[in-house]
Amino acid sequence: MTLHPGLEVVSGLIGTWRGDGHGEYPTIESFDYVEEVTFTDVGKPFLHYAQMTWSPSGAPMHTETGYLRIINGTGVEFVLAQPTGQTELSEGPLESKTDGFTCELRSQVHNSGSAKHVEATLRHIELAGGVLTTSFAMAAAGVPMTHHLASQMHSIS
Amino acid sequence: MTLHPGLEVVSGLIGTWRGDGHGEYPTIESFDYVEEVTFTDVGKPFLHYAQMTWSPSGAPMHTETGYLRIINGTGVEFVLAQPTGQTELSEGPLESKTDGFTCELRSQVHNSGSAKHVEATLRHIELAGGVLTTSFAMAAAGVPMTHHLASQMHSIS
Repeated sequence: MTLHPGLEVVSGLIGTWRGDGHGEYPTIESFDYVEEVTFTDVGKPFLHYAQMTWSPSGAPMHTETGYLRIINGTGVEFVLAQPTGQTELSEGPLESKTDGFTCELRSQVHNSGSAKHVEATLRHIELAGGVLTTSFAMAAAGVPMTHHLASQMHSIS
Repeated sequence: MTLHPGLEVVSGLIGTWRGDGHGEYPTIESFDYVEEVTFTDVGKPFLHYAQMTWSPSGAPMHTETGYLRIINGTGVEFVLAQPTGQTELSEGPLESKTDGFTCELRSQVHNSGSAKHVEATLRHIELAGGVLTTSFAMAAAGVPMTHHLASQMHSIS
């Protein structure tokens, strides 16, 4: 399967990544977690994305899924579904680097009728030196945009 | 893994379904397709959803993914990401039947900056007599809500 040329700039993402993360938010106790993400090429101009996190003891925590779209080599559209009842449409510019890229994505979040209300999120994704670094801030539960999650992952397949 | 009790009403969905579909819309030529959907229990109060369609000759067409949430046994929240740049939050009442259920879901659709604009969708999902029947209407490309897709699938695993 030939990679769509529009995805060359993020080709280093394809595969499965695993590493440790740390979460914090004003309304909860801080916590550590293990994160695994997989970006899959399906022969189209986007990558399929699947993510899972676990507590350090192995209990499942969060999961999310969606698609990463690259627009003209310079823009990212991260289209996400959350099992907690939110859709998240995160967009921002892509900055290519010699061994990867960085991007900061601002979201439109929409909440289902029964969901705890999330106002907005801010994601930073960086691939550099063989390390995938993510951070995630959100405005939710009456708290303005505040840092929530950070992880560093290495390729495992 | 024990099924979350809130998912009993849709437990018949769990597994993989495959069958034929037909598409039409005022702006395009009608077409036939093959559809496969998988609903997966991950031990939480939602099912993971993954869908793919192919042309009758086997060429990949659409794919979508997300989560099916059941609210108090009487409501459906279908949280979806589309690789075409849309998030779709589809909600509606769930009607249980002796051998399945039916639901009609109205959506909030949100479009990324580069996406072709979809205004809204309407999904009907029915499980009855061992057949999973779906239909999908959308308002898009200046066309008001109009029928687009219909499929009938049988369990394959």
